[in-house]
Amino acid sequence: MAAPPAESPLILISNDDGIDAPGIRALTAALDGLGELMVVAPAQEQSAVGHAITVRMPVRAHERTMEVPSGTVPAYAVTGTPADCIKLAITQLTPRRPALIVSGINRGPNTAVNVIYSGTVSAATEGAISGIDAMAVSLCKWKAEAAADYEAAGRYARRMAEEILAQGLPPGVLLNVNVPDQPYRDIRGIAITRQARSRWEESFEARTDPLQRPYYWMAGTFVNLDEGDNTDIEAVEGGYVSATPLQLDLTAHDHLQALRKWTW
Amino acid sequence: MAAPPAESPLILISNDDGIDAPGIRALTAALDGLGELMVVAPAQEQSAVGHAITVRMPVRAHERTMEVPSGTVPAYAVTGTPADCIKLAITQLTPRRPALIVSGINRGPNTAVNVIYSGTVSAATEGAISGIDAMAVSLCKWKAEAAADYEAAGRYARRMAEEILAQGLPPGVLLNVNVPDQPYRDIRGIAITRQARSRWEESFEARTDPLQRPYYWMAGTFVNLDEGDNTDIEAVEGGYVSATPLQLDLTAHDHLQALRKWTW
Repeated sequence: MAAPPAESPLILISNDDGIDAPGIRALTAALDGLGELMVVAPAQEQSAVGHAITVRMPVRAHERTMEVPSGTVPAYAVTGTPADCIKLAITQLTPRRPALIVSGINRGPNTAVNVIYSGTVSAATEGAISGIDAMAVSLCKWKAEAAADYEAAGRYARRMAEEILAQGLPPGVLLNVNVPDQPYRDIRGIAITRQARSRWEESFEARTDPLQRPYYWMAGTFVNLDEGDNTDIEAVEGGYVSATPLQLDLTAHDHLQALRKWTW
Repeated sequence: MAAPPAESPLILISNDDGIDAPGIRALTAALDGLGELMVVAPAQEQSAVGHAITVRMPVRAHERTMEVPSGTVPAYAVTGTPADCIKLAITQLTPRRPALIVSGINRGPNTAVNVIYSGTVSAATEGAISGIDAMAVSLCKWKAEAAADYEAAGRYARRMAEEILAQGLPPGVLLNVNVPDQPYRDIRGIAITRQARSRWEESFEARTDPLQRPYYWMAGTFVNLDEGDNTDIEAVEGGYVSATPLQLDLTAHDHLQALRKWTW
């Protein structure tokens, strides 16, 4: 690869769709030249693993490279989850502490309550836990559809990575970015949003196997329960890239006082 | 089992240590008589799965029973994660909508940043997503030690379940309970707390297998970064049961305005 300056920021790239997914290749190509890049991503698809970590088995890291316009960048395929990838990368694989972690580009939205299930977001969360600026990027296109076009998402990922490198995120805050499935020229800009309130409904379907034993497939319908302003869903539906700052503190601070009045 | 009144609240019990773990048996016994009980828990240990869900494979539910002092309660061993168990239970297995979900008793603390990795907490989170009051209960004893005594945690779980049934939690809020590893008589009471700021350090250890190939085991040291008051860690160390309300909205609301001023 074209050697970046010695003090070039190290950018660690990961995802949950696996190292061979088109989204992470598009992301790595889009960030080419912005700093020294390294890819550490799951060897296999890890969608919906949430913030799982591998504690009962060893993990392995297989060295390879990934092509970018200027040449190749070092890459590792890890036999683990996205959170494993980041922990392993920053403790064992990167030559120095990354300046930024970028996870994605996920195929499918990670808006609203989906952040809780998302391996893409968990890789960025692991960065925030370790005090490293981090961003998760998702393309709002559903999996069952035709081939995805990552061009717009890649361009916005680069632009937002540059801004994070320049400004620095607040400690313990990561940025969750969702890009509308539209050509770059049709996207209206970036909106700073909040996570929409939502849920999944009727999420299992009962079936019977050829031996007459019951089994269940997860199905379900996503329900947006939020009619307020400035949500990630509203932004994406309006043609904006949504950027939601997420935090690690899950405490419901607004309810502490009321709970203290219960008869414990 | 002793038939509860027809309008008895249905209490759904799950965990992440698996249906055969002593902690879920102790919890179910401790809640005996408080309502109609049903256990839906992973067939195998699922610690540290975070909020993973099983989307690429079918899941199965194997019917069995669990013994309690008054008789037996219906139980299902599910080939999936804690989040799968709750989704499957409330859509397919329970006779009606549960009034309360209780997850645990986990062996090991789920304080501070550990809530993000915890399958025990994720079962309760899934309840909150579905609009059902939910509580996760953990015993602050590390796994490598001798046999755990769940008596105090069971008694507090029952007391707090009663209070939640009586008062009702705010929508979208679950209660994350951590019980000190002490005899019941030595515990000083219940403290309403917040999640301590913390992280894990140096979380992988490099080794070489008999064929000279490298592999990595997750290791790591827990670091409490929080010197403030009212944290879950401080409460447990002081001999209190910590009860932290957790919310589903991860938005860093305090940082929205500042981020809007960046040059996007």
